[in-house]
Amino acid sequence: MSVEIHIVDGPLGLDASAPGEGRDGAGAVIVFDGIVRGREEGRPLAALTYEAYEPMASRELAKLGDDIARKHGLLGLRCVHSRGRVGVGECSMRVTIWSAHRAEGLAAMGEFIDRLKQDVPIWKRVVWKE
Amino acid sequence: MSVEIHIVDGPLGLDASAPGEGRDGAGAVIVFDGIVRGREEGRPLAALTYEAYEPMASRELAKLGDDIARKHGLLGLRCVHSRGRVGVGECSMRVTIWSAHRAEGLAAMGEFIDRLKQDVPIWKRVVWKE
Repeated sequence: MSVEIHIVDGPLGLDASAPGEGRDGAGAVIVFDGIVRGREEGRPLAALTYEAYEPMASRELAKLGDDIARKHGLLGLRCVHSRGRVGVGECSMRVTIWSAHRAEGLAAMGEFIDRLKQDVPIWKRVVWKE
Repeated sequence: MSVEIHIVDGPLGLDASAPGEGRDGAGAVIVFDGIVRGREEGRPLAALTYEAYEPMASRELAKLGDDIARKHGLLGLRCVHSRGRVGVGECSMRVTIWSAHRAEGLAAMGEFIDRLKQDVPIWKRVVWKE
């Protein structure tokens, strides 16, 4: 656990990786990265492998994203999800949400990911460490 | 409002701007950017100006961050906040949270920002559009 605080003068730099930060009316941009952890049920693993029938997974994700965006009045939602092998410490999913205010953006993020894990046909397989 | 979905093969690239993504045990990395919106109470503005007595604001932010990190069992929390003028569409605050799982990370993010706005001595002044 570590805590870092900085105060800097003027605007913070925006990520090259986050085009659309300045999306009209957005007061909050939230990026969630899901990272592969090194242990599952106490046992060390090497990677996760994600399997998806891509057209169906994309369609389900788009439907879910649309539903969440409407419900919470979002300005935008982007989800990028991996397929195939993703090693420990690597990122397998990035969700970006643009909203006018923080409350609806944070609520939408939690709900989107919960429903993604529950409903979207993307399966993960553990590759145990030898 | 727009929704984008991508399915890509293998790990997603990590931001150069996010060192420590691979922080040990982190399953979730959440980045919140606060962006200056173009209107306040329906009236167009040019910028916000943030004023802070830096040593005190840093100390209060560190105390708050530490409190939130302990309460939610976080692996890390970073807050970067602007001082001075920040134009419309620019980022004035970035909070990064590392946690084992998403639930505690999202809860911590909401609580940290709520308490920051309420308790930390950083004052904002509206610069109205001419």
